[in-house]
Amino acid sequence: MPYDLWYWPQIPGRGEFVRLALEAGGIAYRDLARAEGGLNALAADLRRPRAQPPFAPPYLVADGMTVAQTANILLFLGERHGLAPGGAAGRFWVNQLQLTIADAVAEAHDTHHPVGVGLFYEDQKPEAARRAREFRDARLPKYLGHFEQALQGAGPWLAGEHWSYADLSLFQLVEGLCFAFPRRMAGAEREWPGVMALRGAVAALPELRHYLGSDRRLPFGDGVFRHYPELDAA
Amino acid sequence: MPYDLWYWPQIPGRGEFVRLALEAGGIAYRDLARAEGGLNALAADLRRPRAQPPFAPPYLVADGMTVAQTANILLFLGERHGLAPGGAAGRFWVNQLQLTIADAVAEAHDTHHPVGVGLFYEDQKPEAARRAREFRDARLPKYLGHFEQALQGAGPWLAGEHWSYADLSLFQLVEGLCFAFPRRMAGAEREWPGVMALRGAVAALPELRHYLGSDRRLPFGDGVFRHYPELDAA
Repeated sequence: MPYDLWYWPQIPGRGEFVRLALEAGGIAYRDLARAEGGLNALAADLRRPRAQPPFAPPYLVADGMTVAQTANILLFLGERHGLAPGGAAGRFWVNQLQLTIADAVAEAHDTHHPVGVGLFYEDQKPEAARRAREFRDARLPKYLGHFEQALQGAGPWLAGEHWSYADLSLFQLVEGLCFAFPRRMAGAEREWPGVMALRGAVAALPELRHYLGSDRRLPFGDGVFRHYPELDAA
Repeated sequence: MPYDLWYWPQIPGRGEFVRLALEAGGIAYRDLARAEGGLNALAADLRRPRAQPPFAPPYLVADGMTVAQTANILLFLGERHGLAPGGAAGRFWVNQLQLTIADAVAEAHDTHHPVGVGLFYEDQKPEAARRAREFRDARLPKYLGHFEQALQGAGPWLAGEHWSYADLSLFQLVEGLCFAFPRRMAGAEREWPGVMALRGAVAALPELRHYLGSDRRLPFGDGVFRHYPELDAA
């Protein structure tokens, strides 16, 4: 039985972190909201009564369970399909890194939605400019510096000799930051050489090559990562 | 060997979610940053080179591992000390709930720091007023409505017949919301009766009674949850 993935069909968003793990792990899944009429199907599925309801997409229906929250889905896939170390130290380390990546993703999102997710960007542009400046100057380098440090203690991957789902997610975070903040990220190879080398190594993974070149790989568009030139600076 | 907990000593913050699990589980620990000179000790400990560094407090040093990220620490304690169901369905469900609680905590924090964590509240008061309004009107009821729904599918606790660390964390979230937004939460018993009953049930747990009445239980103060009357409304 293939797993069923549910996520907003128009953007890669948080669903893409799950997709990368499914694709790199060679795990069969149906991307249900991306079929024709998928958005309506997702809306209907979200209204279905469930004993263990998701708060929001993405969620994965697998073995009769509904598993939601990106980092939780990845923990599940990591355990079931060997996409993370099996021992306690490696397993909690990869989960810890994933949660820090999730925090960075949320803060990248909030650069264009600092006042509220229910409002348009156009209704919060001055606030976004302030928040984006703090993100570029303080938070982005703090996060990427942390992952650089984590790679120095291990390597070539975050949890040692084999890639884990956290490596795929760090790749996706960096891709998103390069899309949203190209001027800020222009010197990234010099500032965080390990992180940028890992990004290249994930992009070159034989397990992902077909997917990354396919039309299943969505452009960032107006999702979690957005490119507003006025929010970017070197 | 007792575990070592490291967290900012002046506020309950995210450290309190870990403390509640340690206390309710009867687990021996040292709250190292709350001893005299603790803040300096924490700063020094954060500078220590580690193969698996924390991004930020709280972190727990246990069995030679350093485990960071609140939900990850709780996952660790849940597995080691039976503070969550042992089966897959219950374990991922509790972790999912915990991650949703973490999202709600982050959004509650951002009501007073919408533009940047590195700035003072006083430097972002207009932005905070807008963000707090959206939180009170849309996000807070969405989160508490979700937990109400989750309790209807289970009960009396979030994962069934025994309390788990997610119940302790939901209690702490509600305590924080009642402190920060007393006018918004005035009708909470009517809007989310299950959630408010769970809050009372955790407060009455024999395992926690001594701790909650002790001076180890810190007041909210100027932490993650803050009471600014101008950010609150019915």
